[in-house]
Amino acid sequence: MSKETTKYDLVVIGGGPAGYAGAIKAGQMGKKVACVEMERAGGTCLNWGCIPSKALLSSAELYQRMLHAEDFGFKTGKIDIDFSKVMKRSRNVADQMAKGIEFLFKKNKVDYVRGKARVEKGNKVVVFEGTDKGKTLEADKVLVATGCKPRMIPGVEHDGERVMNSRDALGMTEQPKSIVIIGAGAIGAEFAYFLNALGTKVTLVEMLPKILPIEDNEISDSVARAFKKQGIDCHTDTKVEDIKPTKTKVSMTLTKGDNKEKIEAEKILVAIGVQANTEGLFGEGISLDMDRNYIKTKEDYQTSVKGVYAAGDIIGPPWLAHVATFEAVQAVRGMFEKHKPEKVKLFPGCTYCQPQVASIGKTEQKLKEEKIPYKVGKFPFTASGKAVAAAHSEGFVKLLVDKEYGEILGAHIVGAEATELITEYVLGMKVEATAEEIHDTIHAHPTLSEALMEASAAVYGEAIHI
Amino acid sequence: MSKETTKYDLVVIGGGPAGYAGAIKAGQMGKKVACVEMERAGGTCLNWGCIPSKALLSSAELYQRMLHAEDFGFKTGKIDIDFSKVMKRSRNVADQMAKGIEFLFKKNKVDYVRGKARVEKGNKVVVFEGTDKGKTLEADKVLVATGCKPRMIPGVEHDGERVMNSRDALGMTEQPKSIVIIGAGAIGAEFAYFLNALGTKVTLVEMLPKILPIEDNEISDSVARAFKKQGIDCHTDTKVEDIKPTKTKVSMTLTKGDNKEKIEAEKILVAIGVQANTEGLFGEGISLDMDRNYIKTKEDYQTSVKGVYAAGDIIGPPWLAHVATFEAVQAVRGMFEKHKPEKVKLFPGCTYCQPQVASIGKTEQKLKEEKIPYKVGKFPFTASGKAVAAAHSEGFVKLLVDKEYGEILGAHIVGAEATELITEYVLGMKVEATAEEIHDTIHAHPTLSEALMEASAAVYGEAIHI
Repeated sequence: MSKETTKYDLVVIGGGPAGYAGAIKAGQMGKKVACVEMERAGGTCLNWGCIPSKALLSSAELYQRMLHAEDFGFKTGKIDIDFSKVMKRSRNVADQMAKGIEFLFKKNKVDYVRGKARVEKGNKVVVFEGTDKGKTLEADKVLVATGCKPRMIPGVEHDGERVMNSRDALGMTEQPKSIVIIGAGAIGAEFAYFLNALGTKVTLVEMLPKILPIEDNEISDSVARAFKKQGIDCHTDTKVEDIKPTKTKVSMTLTKGDNKEKIEAEKILVAIGVQANTEGLFGEGISLDMDRNYIKTKEDYQTSVKGVYAAGDIIGPPWLAHVATFEAVQAVRGMFEKHKPEKVKLFPGCTYCQPQVASIGKTEQKLKEEKIPYKVGKFPFTASGKAVAAAHSEGFVKLLVDKEYGEILGAHIVGAEATELITEYVLGMKVEATAEEIHDTIHAHPTLSEALMEASAAVYGEAIHI
Repeated sequence: MSKETTKYDLVVIGGGPAGYAGAIKAGQMGKKVACVEMERAGGTCLNWGCIPSKALLSSAELYQRMLHAEDFGFKTGKIDIDFSKVMKRSRNVADQMAKGIEFLFKKNKVDYVRGKARVEKGNKVVVFEGTDKGKTLEADKVLVATGCKPRMIPGVEHDGERVMNSRDALGMTEQPKSIVIIGAGAIGAEFAYFLNALGTKVTLVEMLPKILPIEDNEISDSVARAFKKQGIDCHTDTKVEDIKPTKTKVSMTLTKGDNKEKIEAEKILVAIGVQANTEGLFGEGISLDMDRNYIKTKEDYQTSVKGVYAAGDIIGPPWLAHVATFEAVQAVRGMFEKHKPEKVKLFPGCTYCQPQVASIGKTEQKLKEEKIPYKVGKFPFTASGKAVAAAHSEGFVKLLVDKEYGEILGAHIVGAEATELITEYVLGMKVEATAEEIHDTIHAHPTLSEALMEASAAVYGEAIHI
């Protein structure tokens, strides 16, 4: 490609789950489209988030199973961990998937432009850093999908070594003997499970009263109990103050109410949230309406600047890859098709520690707060034949339905494969199926999914197996 | 309990998935109910079928993963198999679940009667063998749910040692060096995977042109390729003749067209189907309408004898536990509630070998045969980030939809967790969701379930990741 101006129907800025999906979608529609990415196709999710972390978790799960191999009839002798190999596998998986996206760009005739982009007046996109520096892309429409990056603690030097964010942690080559993880959301919980499973001494600290604070309280409590049993030292309602990295360790103070405890660890991982990637994104004279530092969009994902759209993490929470993809595809369909773009109302959330957590809709505490009349149905995996046979009997399914009509208001699962199982309830809510319809659906036996049927029956006291 | 006559609202004969579910359901409804079982609560499924086999498969899957532990970053040294312990674990699981059913009987006030029952005129149920022999139960209604047992090969002595059925195989304590499995349906395929995974030389023989003959041809082919790669010697279109057990082995002839091959193995497992348990079930003067040796039932599950109902395997195919449970619950609700019992039209089928197979609705060959216009959407797990991260990228999802309206006609999955994943399509078909609605549903990322969304998009050439 020359460094001259090229005219596109759509220029997408950012090659993550929003950006690449939007670009591919436009390509499928026969549009001339470019996707500008300053690092690697796939974005954070694929390169430094969802995907490599799942590879690590697979290793951790296998290791934990192997420690109990004797229960299954096997003798293994001592099991040695090659931590660098565990990490290397996750990099290979990320690399393979990123190549896959690059292949999809070619297949769908998406021009893959490498560099950091800036939107200039008149919907010009200038590449001002990176391999394709100096290139200007003229676009009928621009989709900004630059996503977010981990937020760090102000005043604490982020060296990537003692003080890490999730991206640094995914790049570790040596297993830390001890770590303090600050923030017990999905990312913090997954790293806590992973490192603890392989033998690192893990302290997990959460400022809010519960770990996984956005989940249903019963689910959070269940994971907290599981984590404690696994040996993770969990602190809730706790602040981390006075963080002092030295050459070989980090010291800090945990403050819970009036109690203060000085602790130290080899590393800390900061997993307290994300912030928008907006630096250098807009040239002179372009000023977008923002909501804090997220880009505000209208119903069709258009920003306050005509022709400039935004989707994904950059437009604010819930910062989930599947939400980002959905938004970008909706935005692109709205640009080029007779289609009224849909904004995201209903989406599942998943945490891939063991036991896994998956949920959709409202929590019980939220229903109480909003004074919505509800009924609850629960089913424990201890009563599931498949769960017991597979030695995965930890956890339960909790279904919250409208008291009068049985409409599903919220669904919460903690246990093995929760992240796959939730899909049934997700579709159920999407098509407005009732608990009764879930119950009347013949679920294959023996499966974990029967627990979802039983929970829907339990709403009305009609579960067979409890 | 005395051995005198006791009067019940319902007497259920058989304590398997139909019988125990029907009895528990009646108990929940406040009915006076007894369940007569000649062996152990839970029936074949729980004691000698679905449940213990899943425990064995868990061991096999773990063993196979451990053999590849190095890919995940671990060194294990040599792994020793204690086969008797593998088997013992499966017995413990079955035992635990059977105790669970017995607990549910107590909880739901179901009288658990141990013995072999015979229905006498006037809806009396006499226990004529077993612990409660001599007892007579008078019943307003009787539900016959005696199920099926494995069918053996006529003329071949069934000693349970050289010549086994699935029940015998679940009772093995020593690992056979070699085995010929006759019949490549779900049971044959599961045992083939299990034994081969642990190192037994397995020959799998199927009379029909494909293994898993009721599945979609592409799925069968995919499993056949996987089995071949695993080292299972598969023979289709092949008859087993001239079976001769000796003290130490079994010899036989495999006949495929004009080709004849003499082979031998330590054992054979006959998995060619089932036959109804009707022996001694009806006293003098009671004659039910039968279909071959299955009991014929009307729309409300009533047999040709007033007050006598039947559900589960005893009323014929598909011989699936989840279908049996559904039927029994429908029958019981019809007896005691203002409820029009539903007969089973739509049900998933599952095979738990690796890769797993799950399906619902019609196969592609069936649609062709019936000249139904259809579209097909496919998505391979190699393109799923979660599948690659978890090293489970074998297999694919295949969705068959009505050409005009997008209604789901059939869904077929081969791959890891297929048996859990199918549930989304099962609910989809139940509530008559279209492929488009599945596609429009936000699936959590990264999950295997995204492949179901992508397959539904692929129907219209709109999958993002292929």
